[in-house]
Parts: sequence; C-alpha cells; structure tokens
Amino acid sequence: MAPSYPPVDRAVALVSGGLDSCVAAAVACAAAARPAFLHISYGQRTQARERRAFEAIADHYGVDERLAVDIEYLRQIGASSLTDPSLDIPRGDDAPAGVPSTYVPFRNANLLAIAVAWAEALGARAVYIGIHREGATYPDCRPAFLEAFNRLVTEGTRPDSGIQVRAPLIEMDKAGIVRLGCELEAPLHLTWSCYSREDTPCGACHSCRLRRAGFASAGVPDPVTAATSTCSKGEKA
Amino acid sequence: MAPSYPPVDRAVALVSGGLDSCVAAAVACAAAARPAFLHISYGQRTQARERRAFEAIADHYGVDERLAVDIEYLRQIGASSLTDPSLDIPRGDDAPAGVPSTYVPFRNANLLAIAVAWAEALGARAVYIGIHREGATYPDCRPAFLEAFNRLVTEGTRPDSGIQVRAPLIEMDKAGIVRLGCELEAPLHLTWSCYSREDTPCGACHSCRLRRAGFASAGVPDPVTAATSTCSKGEKA
Repeated sequence: MAPSYPPVDRAVALVSGGLDSCVAAAVACAAAARPAFLHISYGQRTQARERRAFEAIADHYGVDERLAVDIEYLRQIGASSLTDPSLDIPRGDDAPAGVPSTYVPFRNANLLAIAVAWAEALGARAVYIGIHREGATYPDCRPAFLEAFNRLVTEGTRPDSGIQVRAPLIEMDKAGIVRLGCELEAPLHLTWSCYSREDTPCGACHSCRLRRAGFASAGVPDPVTAATSTCSKGEKA
Repeated sequence: MAPSYPPVDRAVALVSGGLDSCVAAAVACAAAARPAFLHISYGQRTQARERRAFEAIADHYGVDERLAVDIEYLRQIGASSLTDPSLDIPRGDDAPAGVPSTYVPFRNANLLAIAVAWAEALGARAVYIGIHREGATYPDCRPAFLEAFNRLVTEGTRPDSGIQVRAPLIEMDKAGIVRLGCELEAPLHLTWSCYSREDTPCGACHSCRLRRAGFASAGVPDPVTAATSTCSKGEKA
C-alpha cells in the first residue's frame, strides 16, 4: 500500500535510475500535480547507465521539468568503493559488518541539499527520496537521519518554504518496494541497480543481490533480467 | 577574543576568500594541527576573484591540503541575484525587508554538506564556517541552523566520525570580526568581499557596505582599500 502523504502541487523527486528511486518517483507522481525529476551523478562507476535509466523513467512519466547535475566533487573526495576505482566493490557475503565500503561520506545529505535548493527555487513543497530499511547499514538512510534533515530544512530555508522531505519507502524492505512498484505500475523494466557494470547486471554485487532477493521474495520476475514481467502489464509508455 | 573550541588534529575550513571566512580560517589554524582548506565556487559573479583570494590565504597559512570544487548546479538552480545575472544585486539601502535577493536557496547546507563529506573522508573532527550575526537575515546563517546541521552530522555520518561544525563568528558583528582578525593577525589584505566587481570593490553592494562599516566601527583601515593597515603589521607571508 502506498504511504499516505498529503497531495502537493509541485514535488521534486530524486531519481537515480535505480529500483528504489523509481518506486519513490511513482509515489511522487501519484501525489504531485507537477512532479520534477532530479538526477545527480557523483562519479560513481555506472553513472552513464544510471543517467539513461533516469531519462527513460522521466519519459515514461512525461516529466519535462528535469535537472541533471554532476557533482564531481564526491569523486574528488573519494573514500568509497563506489567512487574510487582503486577500491573493490564488495561481492556476495564478503561484506564485513558495519558501514559498507560502498558508503559515500555524507552522500544523502549532499543529494538532499541539492534537491531542497531546487525545490525552494521551484516553489515545490515536497522532496522524494527512495531510502529504505535495507539501506540502514548506511548512516544516512535511517529514520533519525530523515528527521534531522527535515529539521534542518525548516531552519535553513525561507520561513514560508514549507518543504518536507518524504521517504515513502523508509520502513520497507526490497520485496515491499517491488510489490509497491507493481501496484503503482512503476516502470521497473527501465531501472538499473548494478554497482559494477553497465551492460548486463553483474549479479554478484550487493545491489544486484538485494534486488534479486527482493523480486524473488515478492514472487515477481525481474523485468531487467527476465523476458517478461507481471509489472509490465500496466506500462504507460 | 577568540572563541573557545577544543583543539583538534585535523580540521576543514570553508574559505570563500571573503573577510569572514578568512577570520574563521585563522581560528581554525589556531585550533588545528593540520588544517585543510575548502573553496567552493557556485557560479557567483565574482568567483574568479574569490578563488584567487582563497589561494592567497592558503599560501599565507602554508596549507597544502586544499580542495577547490565547482558546484555549477547552484547557478542551474538560480533564484538568487548572486547567481542569476538577470537579477539586480541590491545596492545601498534599497534592500527590502525580509530575506534578501542575494539569498541562494539552502546554500550553506550545500556548502557544509560538502565540507562534512570531505572531513569524514580525511578523518577531520571539525569543520569551520564563517557565518555571523549580521548574516542572520539569511535563514541558513542562524544559530538554529547550525544546531540543526550538527544534529544532522551526528545522524548522517559514520558513528565514530565525531565531526563538529564550528561557527566561531556566529555571535559576532562585522566590527568584532575585524577586531578578531587583527588579534589573530589574519591576512585581511588578501580577502575579497564585493558581490559585484572583481577589479576594485564597488563600494555600494550590501557586502561592501557591511565590510566598510565593520572596519570603521572597529577603528581599523581596510587594507584592501587603504594604503596601510594596522592589521598588516603581523603579516606572516
């Protein structure tokens, strides 16, 4: 069931091109009369593929208000296997306990700061982000982070901005996200999740494994790796 | 008198090249064994001049660990007379009440998010920013903003990051900042404050006027516009 946030006129959705952000964008499109899609590249390995997924999802929803920005600086800063080619992407169950090496320092605060700046410039009242429960090994994916960010938005924008950051998936696991995506007829076939490759998903990285387990647990074939999908029946494109 | 924050090994200082950030950097250099200087261009009109000021101040303090990043996206987002050439910079007392047109949406949250990401990558425990009392017409210069940001840092970085954002000037007016800069022998002669011009300060924009009033009230000649300055006596360069 889709989470209940009140409808708004304008909303900014952070759309990386992955499964989670696609479903969060579907929720945004259901809630906002005028959704605007924001894509942020930050030097991650698969950024060209993710950008194509972003454009395809925006085309699917007929969203003209889109902004793609490149924040090269997260690669300059480094300290993550997602942006530093000299570090290995953890595969399979090799990932050690604690914060994974794919953690990009303070990444979601950086992404949300951009999204809120754009929302304030557009007069949008909501910002959507696809963080979820299974990302909670990253410090910037937890409910306490979301709550702290919303307080910052209240303090740090114009008094009448009224912007709320919404994370409709924050209590969901991957299977729940797949189910919600199907319910909302989200274009899951257009998404890209793999951390390592841009041609076909590697199947071994943490993101590929989470995705596969999520589709399996939801009992739905993954339209990116399978020939057909029950989710594609309602495709609008 | 310099504010009392405990000493740290490494600290990141946001150094725009203006008067305030120069004095905040002087405080950082007094507190940190290994200061690192961060400069962020965001499409503001005088960015080339400010970058030169940043490099000169970093040279003055012998800081090798420096990072200059360009966040073009704040110009893409616009909605500020500082980044949109089609909007006039307010001059003199024409500025209306409320948030000035030079406000860049959520700017300081964006700048601090970058600084904290770099601090986390470096293992720095403190981030210095030169926000002050006379900037409090901007929502993102107030103590409540600083407090909310520090809570966000606690929630959004690795559990052991221990990063504190420090705003040593936050309770000061411009005269107090000038006096502290002189006390710390900060290289005020290397700073640039004008919002409009890159050759000689326009003298009319809000930033020029605040600066002039600050030096006058402190009873110190401005080394950028005057031939000599009492502050230059202790220059280390």
